[in-house]
Amino acid sequence: MNFEVLHDDASTNARLGRLTTARAVVDTPVFMPVGTQATVKSQTPDEVAQTGSRLILANTYHLMLRPGAERVREFGGVQRFMAWPHALLTDSGGYQVFSLSGLRKIDDDAVTFRSHIDGSKHVLSPERSMEVQALLGSDIAMVLDECPPGDADRASVERAMERTTRWAQRCLASPAAEGQARFGIVQGASFLDLRLRHLDQIAQLPFEGLALGGFSVGEAIEIMYGLVAELGPKLPAHKPRYLMGVGKPVDLLRGIAAGIDMFDCVLPTRNARNGQALTWGGRVNLRQSKHQTADAPLDASCDCPVCQSYSRAYLRHLFMAKVMLGPRLITQHNLHFYQALTRGAREAIAQDRFAAYAKVVEDKFVAEDEVDTPD
Amino acid sequence: MNFEVLHDDASTNARLGRLTTARAVVDTPVFMPVGTQATVKSQTPDEVAQTGSRLILANTYHLMLRPGAERVREFGGVQRFMAWPHALLTDSGGYQVFSLSGLRKIDDDAVTFRSHIDGSKHVLSPERSMEVQALLGSDIAMVLDECPPGDADRASVERAMERTTRWAQRCLASPAAEGQARFGIVQGASFLDLRLRHLDQIAQLPFEGLALGGFSVGEAIEIMYGLVAELGPKLPAHKPRYLMGVGKPVDLLRGIAAGIDMFDCVLPTRNARNGQALTWGGRVNLRQSKHQTADAPLDASCDCPVCQSYSRAYLRHLFMAKVMLGPRLITQHNLHFYQALTRGAREAIAQDRFAAYAKVVEDKFVAEDEVDTPD
Repeated sequence: MNFEVLHDDASTNARLGRLTTARAVVDTPVFMPVGTQATVKSQTPDEVAQTGSRLILANTYHLMLRPGAERVREFGGVQRFMAWPHALLTDSGGYQVFSLSGLRKIDDDAVTFRSHIDGSKHVLSPERSMEVQALLGSDIAMVLDECPPGDADRASVERAMERTTRWAQRCLASPAAEGQARFGIVQGASFLDLRLRHLDQIAQLPFEGLALGGFSVGEAIEIMYGLVAELGPKLPAHKPRYLMGVGKPVDLLRGIAAGIDMFDCVLPTRNARNGQALTWGGRVNLRQSKHQTADAPLDASCDCPVCQSYSRAYLRHLFMAKVMLGPRLITQHNLHFYQALTRGAREAIAQDRFAAYAKVVEDKFVAEDEVDTPD
Repeated sequence: MNFEVLHDDASTNARLGRLTTARAVVDTPVFMPVGTQATVKSQTPDEVAQTGSRLILANTYHLMLRPGAERVREFGGVQRFMAWPHALLTDSGGYQVFSLSGLRKIDDDAVTFRSHIDGSKHVLSPERSMEVQALLGSDIAMVLDECPPGDADRASVERAMERTTRWAQRCLASPAAEGQARFGIVQGASFLDLRLRHLDQIAQLPFEGLALGGFSVGEAIEIMYGLVAELGPKLPAHKPRYLMGVGKPVDLLRGIAAGIDMFDCVLPTRNARNGQALTWGGRVNLRQSKHQTADAPLDASCDCPVCQSYSRAYLRHLFMAKVMLGPRLITQHNLHFYQALTRGAREAIAQDRFAAYAKVVEDKFVAEDEVDTPD
């Protein structure tokens, strides 16, 4: 993997970069759509690629349970299995073990848990996480980290952080898969001093990229913005910087301003399934009855296939009729929007006008938040 | 609307034809995918058109309740509302009133029923059905008929049949929508003499096409085959003949052999949502665990986008993971299969070898039925 910073914005910490993996050239800042179970929900790989995406995320936890990492290997890896010819990042499995699975037991060696699907018992160690991700064959693998709950006390956070460092070293000691890059993860919850200490520890290890984990787990959004603004510029400048599981359009812009290069979030896909579209005019909730008579597209300035063909009234009809074309089309539009948002950010950085770009978008989303009461 | 028979098969009653509506030229025999609520479930109009379809069906009952026929009219009719630029047939609403709605009351004037969505009260008369279909703006409208239940006795069937004739006359007396063709419906359940009498009555009316209604409502399949074989050739030869709500691949071939030109059925779309694919090798049930390791496509001889890109193992994975891309892709394949099946039938008729064509396909489906035990 290769990463180069092409340009630094004049007035913020935003930066334009290029990430070259075994399978794709990815312009950064980049938003990665989430393909949890080797599928970006409701979309074909062609549709995802049409939005401009060349890097998506898949979840190790889900794929190790179903269909199983060894099975995916038999089919030539997750990209071939799902017919996605571009780049793919896998998470470590840790986050879902801590949030989805039952009866887990964690010690220094590994985390033992029961599958949320069938209750079967599994062990995930740092080494096994790397082995699973090698079997899946992703372009970028994440180290296994311990993710303390959002309300964990300082002592617990500190213990999890130290364990995450030991696990990071074990991940690096595991055999690397051919052509697969490995990223370390900085934990420390909302404690700035812990975050800074952990950043120092992880930054010293020979990872090819660094991530901020454990955000968007219930803390106030301004806390996250403050920490990301502090930490972003302190992450090594020559490596890609990834803010995991974030976020809303405004969150992305704040992250980009702090020098973050990579993001992933289920928001554009999950919100679509709830009838929420994202547009340059702000959020659009298709549940609202005012859209019954709207012959206009979701966004008149959007060039996605959905905005070229369908009215808000028709999309609302599909959503109210509970047929899957509704979520499918809104997802497609939202993925286009997120790619347009990051493309716009890249263009703005290249022209040293990122702050102005971010302000125009932020104003739309803040204004819309205030009036967007459900119908 | 214009219809011409281009060629009669040498050894069966099958015929090759061409139906020209206000919006499309349709080769017959034709299978119409069902777009119940102004959407062929999970598919975009482009995807439906890619299969070769130029004529689909939408349900008057569903659209009059949601979003409402007058609302659809505001958007320029159902084709523009759903962005389907080709031809569309609407049913009369009768079948769903009798099968879906609660608390219905029927007399000679009309049927009064309550919506299955919100319990609201509606009246559907022959005149209102034609008015609703005119508002929807379909290329072909069906007359309102009374559909007796599958187990109705002879006297009830006869009464429903006579009422259907009176209603057919009232439909014809209603103002016709510009460019919209109207088809009559022959009822009579499984009573051959009633069917023949009703066919005589309806055939005398100036409809532009005739349909056989009330089949596939629980009668033994051989009863239906026998009646269709009798009735098909007796329907006026110069008008399109439509067998409503039918059917499985073998049912289509039997209907085609009897001289039927048009079919519709939810089977390729509904079965897809249950993991059932239709192939030239017979039915494939993706629930079966044997597909877990199958790197082959659904059908190696199929040129649809699904068979070009995905393995059975991946489709099974999507289906087991309950993500909507699974039903979506299987639906797309099944619609391709039905279009390929009818295209194959048309080619066979043109070459006077329809019986041989039908036998090869029938053998596959009968054989597969015997071994296809659910996993």
